[in-house]
Amino acid sequence: MNGKFIVLEGLEGAGKTTAHNAIVEELQALGITDLVFTREPGGTPLAEKLRQLIKHETEEPITDKAELLMLYAARIQLVENVIKPALAQGKWVIGDRHDLSSQAYQGGGRQLDKQFMQTLKNSVLGDFEPDFTIYLDIDPAIGLARARGRGELDRIEQSGLDFFYRTRARYLELVKDNPKAVIINAEQTLEEVTADIKSAVKNFVFSKFIDL
Amino acid sequence: MNGKFIVLEGLEGAGKTTAHNAIVEELQALGITDLVFTREPGGTPLAEKLRQLIKHETEEPITDKAELLMLYAARIQLVENVIKPALAQGKWVIGDRHDLSSQAYQGGGRQLDKQFMQTLKNSVLGDFEPDFTIYLDIDPAIGLARARGRGELDRIEQSGLDFFYRTRARYLELVKDNPKAVIINAEQTLEEVTADIKSAVKNFVFSKFIDL
Repeated sequence: MNGKFIVLEGLEGAGKTTAHNAIVEELQALGITDLVFTREPGGTPLAEKLRQLIKHETEEPITDKAELLMLYAARIQLVENVIKPALAQGKWVIGDRHDLSSQAYQGGGRQLDKQFMQTLKNSVLGDFEPDFTIYLDIDPAIGLARARGRGELDRIEQSGLDFFYRTRARYLELVKDNPKAVIINAEQTLEEVTADIKSAVKNFVFSKFIDL
Repeated sequence: MNGKFIVLEGLEGAGKTTAHNAIVEELQALGITDLVFTREPGGTPLAEKLRQLIKHETEEPITDKAELLMLYAARIQLVENVIKPALAQGKWVIGDRHDLSSQAYQGGGRQLDKQFMQTLKNSVLGDFEPDFTIYLDIDPAIGLARARGRGELDRIEQSGLDFFYRTRARYLELVKDNPKAVIINAEQTLEEVTADIKSAVKNFVFSKFIDL
């Protein structure tokens, strides 16, 4: 039986690390222990080199389109060379970001053409998508203050606050009517966020076992 | 008055360096001396880093789609940050390869979906295209033997002979009815090839002056 692909999404400072740990704990408590962890952009040798260019290139301004194309190049490497083989072996894959990040950041934040975004996604990924997405929702002003507290922001994180409000709006728009996604209020206490995530993961796992 | 963008295309070993020199000599003889030279993939700091990944990545197999997406990321950087600004300053740009290479190598050689190729080109480049393309036509067996004589072949050049026959067929298909392109028989002697190119460049330049 194939594994499942669970993805964490959200703005900087939304608490993805805490959420990641909650997912892993809950899966292990439910007896699902053969896990693979990925992050995007990155997760393969080539994709990590692209991540470095996307996040830290300083010799030249990166056009919005080149940024998007590099993100998809990294993504298809990860999907074909890591995620699909792991799922086929019955492993569960926990992804730190996936396609929804591009839809939100490059589509919403950078305001790239919606039709182009859709065509690119369909052409590159086909019908591959996460089985379950957990979106951590937070006010960008709060999230960025947290991220800043952790150290220097990268090239994308240095975009203005308007950029992040557009990104959050697109996240919410794409997640709210998606039966394969859940919205977690990431402005709650750590304990509350952890409890919500564990509950969401448990519901997802039970729904999959009922499917069988 | 804007400059013009002239592109050299052709398989490995078709004689692009000789052809490049012939173009430059003819333009200079005609009084066009403010020239900018580009190569693809490459020609900007970021695009050169992508070139390195595309041609020499060895840690991981590169999917055909990732190869194509990286080529377009490099291309849009070059177009926006180098070619368009140069043309706007009245400079003439001589390109060693441009979009037609992707159409031929990735579309023809790698057999990527034609509709996807077309959509990607339109979405990324819009209506930007070379003013004049010189395609050097050569039998792949002859071209590759020449290229091999020059040293080690890169990742793409190591594709099989069938790949190059499909690439050449797509080149010919796209160039033959294009009023902005000319086919040069690159199996002739150096002197003949040089004479054909100089004649083609002269015709192109005269046609542009008549346009005014």
